[in-house]
Amino acid sequence: MALRHYTLDFSLSTAVDSASTVPGLLSIFHEQEMTETVHDTDGHGYLATFLLNALEKKLKVLLNGNITRIKRLPALIRGAKVDRYWPTADGRLMEYDIDRVVYEEDSAYQNIKILHSKQFGNILVLNGDVNLAESDSPYTQAIIGSGKENYAGKEVLILGGGDGGILAEVVKQKPKMITMSYIDQKVIDGCRAHMRLTCGSILDSLEGDCYQILVEDCVPVLKKYVQEGRTFDYVINDLTAVPISTEPEEDSTWEFLRLILDLSIKVLHPSGKYFTQGNSVNLKEALSLYEEQLGKLSCPVGFSKEVVCVPSYLELWVFYTVWKK
Amino acid sequence: MALRHYTLDFSLSTAVDSASTVPGLLSIFHEQEMTETVHDTDGHGYLATFLLNALEKKLKVLLNGNITRIKRLPALIRGAKVDRYWPTADGRLMEYDIDRVVYEEDSAYQNIKILHSKQFGNILVLNGDVNLAESDSPYTQAIIGSGKENYAGKEVLILGGGDGGILAEVVKQKPKMITMSYIDQKVIDGCRAHMRLTCGSILDSLEGDCYQILVEDCVPVLKKYVQEGRTFDYVINDLTAVPISTEPEEDSTWEFLRLILDLSIKVLHPSGKYFTQGNSVNLKEALSLYEEQLGKLSCPVGFSKEVVCVPSYLELWVFYTVWKK
Repeated sequence: MALRHYTLDFSLSTAVDSASTVPGLLSIFHEQEMTETVHDTDGHGYLATFLLNALEKKLKVLLNGNITRIKRLPALIRGAKVDRYWPTADGRLMEYDIDRVVYEEDSAYQNIKILHSKQFGNILVLNGDVNLAESDSPYTQAIIGSGKENYAGKEVLILGGGDGGILAEVVKQKPKMITMSYIDQKVIDGCRAHMRLTCGSILDSLEGDCYQILVEDCVPVLKKYVQEGRTFDYVINDLTAVPISTEPEEDSTWEFLRLILDLSIKVLHPSGKYFTQGNSVNLKEALSLYEEQLGKLSCPVGFSKEVVCVPSYLELWVFYTVWKK
Repeated sequence: MALRHYTLDFSLSTAVDSASTVPGLLSIFHEQEMTETVHDTDGHGYLATFLLNALEKKLKVLLNGNITRIKRLPALIRGAKVDRYWPTADGRLMEYDIDRVVYEEDSAYQNIKILHSKQFGNILVLNGDVNLAESDSPYTQAIIGSGKENYAGKEVLILGGGDGGILAEVVKQKPKMITMSYIDQKVIDGCRAHMRLTCGSILDSLEGDCYQILVEDCVPVLKKYVQEGRTFDYVINDLTAVPISTEPEEDSTWEFLRLILDLSIKVLHPSGKYFTQGNSVNLKEALSLYEEQLGKLSCPVGFSKEVVCVPSYLELWVFYTVWKK
C-alpha cells in the first residue's frame, strides 16, 4: 500500500508564531477524524486533495495575507510496489512515469531491473542506475560516433553493451567482425526478452555472420588481445560507470578505469578510434578527473567530447572520442 | 533559509508496532539536541547526513532484519530562494539544476521568469510552465518542420514565439516575409536580454529585412488577415498551452484553441502547412481532444504528428503538422 506524501511549500513575508498557527491547522485533520498529520490515503485520493485545499485555505486565513509564495509539489509516493524515483547522476530527485517492473534478477554481479516507462518504453536499471531505455537511440548513435563513421569491413571491439543496442546498430553497417565482451548473462537474457526495440533479434544468438558475444569479463579478454598483438579499428567502451570485474587487482574505480583505457588503447589500430560515454555534464570534477586519466596512459592520446540529450537520462550526458597521437 | 527535507523510504517484511519503534528513533534526535523530527539544517549538511546514517542504522537494529528495501531519496529543498521544482505537464516531480533567477516580471498577462540551469542554460518559465531553454533547439527544429521544409521566398506567420527562437531560425532561410504576432512586450524584453543562445540578435529590433514583430494579441491580427483574404505558406503556432488573449468572447481553453486553429487554417495557402506543438506524449486524453478539434474546423484538414525529445522538458513532446485537404 503506497502512501502519498504531499508537500505544501510556502514563504512568509514576516515571521509567525507557529504555536498559534499549528493548532488552527490541526483542527482540519481532526475534522477529518485524523489524529495525525501523517496519513495513509488508502487509495482515497479525493480525501487528500480535499485536505490540501482545506489546509491551503486555512493557512491563508490564519496567516492573514502574510504568504508571499505558495506552491503545491506533486506527491512523493512512498512504499509503492514500483519505485518511480531514480535520481540523476548529479543527485537530483526525478520521478519517472514507471508503471511496472518487467524483469528483476540478482546476478552474481549486480541487481538487474527492467522497468516499464509509459513514454520511454522499457528501461534497463543496473544497481539502481538508469542504463538505457528503448527510447535512447541517441545514446547508441553518440557512442558509435554520431553517424560520422563507416564501419563497413572494419574490426570492432565492444566492451560491455549488454543491452545489445550498439551491436544491433553496428552490425547493420556490415563490419568485418564485431567482438563483444559482456560479463553478465542475466542482463543479456533480460534485454533479449524485454529490450527488443533496442537490440532487435541480435541477442537471440551469441554469434552471427559478423559478430560474436563473449560472455566474459573484458579485462582478461583485452589482456589476451594485447599479448597476441591483435588490433581493432574501433573500440567502443560501454561499461557501466561503476566497474564490475572479476579481476581482484584493481580496487579503485579510477585505477580500474585507467586499466581498461590503457588496454583498450593498446589494442587500438594506430588510425583507430575509441568511443566511450563519460558522465553527466554537471559532474565537472568527475569529467576533469577522467580527462586527467587520459593524460596518464602509456601511449599519448588526443580526445574530443560531445554533449548529448539521452531521453531517459533527464540530464545531458558527455561522450568521448579518443585516438592515438 | 532553505530546509532540506529528507525521505527515507523502506518496506518491511512483517508489520511492526510503531509505538515501540518511534520512541527508539526519537532518541537519535534527542542526542542531537533536537526536540522535533522536523529540523532546519541551517547549512550544516553534515549534521543531516549524520542523522540519516544514524536513523538508518538504528532502524535496522530496531527492526531486526525486517527491512526488505530501504532507499534514501535526494532531499526536497523547501523555502529556497530559487525554486528547483517544475513538474512535468503530466504532473511528475522533477528537480531542475537551477541555481539563480535571471529575470522575473509580472506583465499584464502573466508571470515571467527566466531561470538559469547549469546544463540547459537560461529557461523561460511562463506562469510556472517551462516554455523553452537555451538548450532546446530540438523544439525549434520540430515546430518549423524538422528540416524538411524550404522557407526561401515564402510568406510565414508566427503566432506567439516570444522567445524569438523560431524567428531567428526561419530568417536564416531567407523567406519573403515573416510576420510574428506576440502579445507580451515584457517576454520579448526578457528573452532579448537573457535568451540569446535562442534568439541571437533577432529581437534587438521589431523589424528587419524580411520580418516584422507585431506586439499584439494574435486573434485580431488573424481576423484582419481573414477579412483581407491574405494567405501564408506557413503558419507556425507557438502559443502557450494555456491561452492568453485580450478577446473576451472565448471563455474555454478548447474554444480558444479551436478559434485560433480555425482562423489559422483560413489564412493558410491551399498548399501551405500549419505547425504547432501539442502536449506531453503521456497526456493521451488531451492529445485526443486536440485531434477531435481538428475534425471540427470549418475547412477539412489532415494531420501528422511527431514525438520529440526537448532537453529541458524532461518528458517527450508531441508536435503536429496540419494541412488543408
